[in-house]
Amino acid sequence: MEDSEDYLRKAIALAYSNAEKGGRPFGAVIVRDGRVIASAVNEIVETGDPTSHAELNAIRIASRTLGSPDLAGCSVFASGHPCPMCMAAMRLAGIKAVTYAYSNEDGAPHGLSTAAIYDDLAKPFAEQAMDIRHLPVRLAGKPDLYAGWRQQQH
Amino acid sequence: MEDSEDYLRKAIALAYSNAEKGGRPFGAVIVRDGRVIASAVNEIVETGDPTSHAELNAIRIASRTLGSPDLAGCSVFASGHPCPMCMAAMRLAGIKAVTYAYSNEDGAPHGLSTAAIYDDLAKPFAEQAMDIRHLPVRLAGKPDLYAGWRQQQH
Repeated sequence: MEDSEDYLRKAIALAYSNAEKGGRPFGAVIVRDGRVIASAVNEIVETGDPTSHAELNAIRIASRTLGSPDLAGCSVFASGHPCPMCMAAMRLAGIKAVTYAYSNEDGAPHGLSTAAIYDDLAKPFAEQAMDIRHLPVRLAGKPDLYAGWRQQQH
Repeated sequence: MEDSEDYLRKAIALAYSNAEKGGRPFGAVIVRDGRVIASAVNEIVETGDPTSHAELNAIRIASRTLGSPDLAGCSVFASGHPCPMCMAAMRLAGIKAVTYAYSNEDGAPHGLSTAAIYDDLAKPFAEQAMDIRHLPVRLAGKPDLYAGWRQQQH
């Protein structure tokens, strides 16, 4: 039976292997019922896609494997501290546990910490570095977007 | 010259059209230099991918269009209040401005608010609903993962 440290070693090995190929040093695996159902690396360098983090890619693979956006019962093992995007993605997917090996403190001297983004996103919207605006625009002559959608669900 | 309200109307029209096809009622466009460079909808129902939000999909399209993960100079117009995953993704991509039409308050009665996830993610890690663990595992006989990666960058 593999334990958390074994799964982390798999994620770290993926990170090393990705770095050897010129990618960023991040890997992740997703485990369900003691079995690895998804493995992924950071593919930003390869794809140019800024959302292509190891954990997000692993979530995408796991959801395809299970045929569902609901990953309840899955655990994530990530080589590095997940960024706020990936942490939120895990929550949206119903994932209840994440374990990581390299901390943001480990990453900071090498430009690999997301602590500053965490700090900024924790501020009230009006104080964040990004300009976040609410303009309550509506399309004329249409039923309410959300109420209409909800009615369809029944 | 189109203004913010025009871009929001495009995002909302995408949301209506997606809902009409059975998808979730969310759309987003990304604008650069007065031009829409990416349009996307929420594709969770279609793909089963829990990360397939309109804003995240639009970021992926924009990065492919521009051939770069750096979307500085781009603005996002979203039909609904972006969730924490998408908000963080914008930050990672260097996006400086986002405007949305439907608020989390508009969404709450219909199960379409992410305010609760925002609240939970704003707590210290130890108090969040997800179990977040740091196990400083390292692979034996290897140079440091992050220091080694950084050396390669030169």
